[in-house]
Amino acid sequence: MKNYAIGVFDSGMGGLTAVKELNTILPNEDIIYFGDTARVPYGSRSRETVLRYAQQDVEFLKKHKIKMIIAACGTVSSVVGTGSLAPDMPFTGVIHPAVQAACATTQNGKIGIIGTPATIKSGYYEKAIKAINPQMQVVGNACPLFVHLVENGYIQRDNKITILAAKEYLEPIMKENVDTLILGCTHYPVIKDIIADIVGTDVKLISSGAEAAKFAYNCLIEKDLLSDRKEKGKNTFFVSDSVSLFEENAGNFLGHPVNGEVFSCSLGD
Amino acid sequence: MKNYAIGVFDSGMGGLTAVKELNTILPNEDIIYFGDTARVPYGSRSRETVLRYAQQDVEFLKKHKIKMIIAACGTVSSVVGTGSLAPDMPFTGVIHPAVQAACATTQNGKIGIIGTPATIKSGYYEKAIKAINPQMQVVGNACPLFVHLVENGYIQRDNKITILAAKEYLEPIMKENVDTLILGCTHYPVIKDIIADIVGTDVKLISSGAEAAKFAYNCLIEKDLLSDRKEKGKNTFFVSDSVSLFEENAGNFLGHPVNGEVFSCSLGD
Repeated sequence: MKNYAIGVFDSGMGGLTAVKELNTILPNEDIIYFGDTARVPYGSRSRETVLRYAQQDVEFLKKHKIKMIIAACGTVSSVVGTGSLAPDMPFTGVIHPAVQAACATTQNGKIGIIGTPATIKSGYYEKAIKAINPQMQVVGNACPLFVHLVENGYIQRDNKITILAAKEYLEPIMKENVDTLILGCTHYPVIKDIIADIVGTDVKLISSGAEAAKFAYNCLIEKDLLSDRKEKGKNTFFVSDSVSLFEENAGNFLGHPVNGEVFSCSLGD
Repeated sequence: MKNYAIGVFDSGMGGLTAVKELNTILPNEDIIYFGDTARVPYGSRSRETVLRYAQQDVEFLKKHKIKMIIAACGTVSSVVGTGSLAPDMPFTGVIHPAVQAACATTQNGKIGIIGTPATIKSGYYEKAIKAINPQMQVVGNACPLFVHLVENGYIQRDNKITILAAKEYLEPIMKENVDTLILGCTHYPVIKDIIADIVGTDVKLISSGAEAAKFAYNCLIEKDLLSDRKEKGKNTFFVSDSVSLFEENAGNFLGHPVNGEVFSCSLGD
């Protein structure tokens, strides 16, 4: 079982930022990724619908030989909370690893959080932070355009539109003197440079996808499930919509062209 | 049957710009609107899926007493083409009325067209213009951020982000000296002021939703189906996702708060 793959899923492409981190810190592991690109975005669906979709995503991953599941999707993570969609194997969402990292990182107890309107409105990150330490101050701000800017390739460090939007979103948070900022959406690491240019080097950025990958690493060590493979692991990608559309855009999230086979699959409607 | 309602549907809220125009030019008509907000956006779905969804939308409208159907959705209109989803009553999409208006408006034979990436990529507007007059020159440009800017309320005439994006999209078209510009997406009339400020008063703007409304007007006259009601008609709105979310945002499209009852309904998944 040690050489089974790590299963990762997301409503679309954002979860690829977790895959990128897994490839870096766990180069010998196989990854099976499912992106539900035909039903993206999950953020505007009801809780019941999101849960049903997520269960279908997990069922799909379980048809393959996997040893762990990462729900690399902010919406699914907030709906599942501290529960699990796969009680028979290690499972994590993206919120709790990020929140733990932020609480361990902050020096002044002031944590900023940016995310989609649905994520910020849910208050879920704030609740999770306060559950660890009720003294923490949390400042959140929704960034409704970021996902669309990333998905449409407005990601160059000097992109004027993205810089203008980022300033609008980040300035109210920076006024509160946070020293740690959670990128509470797996799309945001793609424009990390732009965000860092605005908040400055004194503010530590916590990427939710990357923290989930680190959490997976620790979890596999703890359960003695790390691969003993000597060669590099391989990535396999499944998407519920067009393969070519995925291949065109995935590079923005991975930081390089798609490094693995891509298949189209259907989960029904 | 004269006093039956006009049925209008869209994948989401954009079609409300057609309702706004209908309310203005046909104030005595009842309107029944269906917005498939649970399955928006249609633009990223396959043709087969869009057609199936559109047929379900039409079936839903037909459960009410209606005398005509407007598919106020660019994606549905391009999939249906010159065909009809309701052969038993007058039916129109948004593309052909806009294209006819543009061809009748242009003086120099140069027509610009802006739309979603899917609409521009389909080349459907250009084909429809050339079918009317093969001598016309058509310059298209995709505006990937406009729908998201409108849906997230970035619509004030002095909004810096929207102005910056609009300049980027419109300048390549203006270089070609078009004298007529089709707003090929029912979201775009919401930021018509911003677009007009950039292209200048010499360029005539053609709104696809408004032209569909005018087409409906002429069609009802021709078929002797105009309402003989003396009092104002009423709007009734149905949406497949949350009523409150609709009520929050519909005002941006209508230009005033929602003027009619709103009901939630499900078409199945």
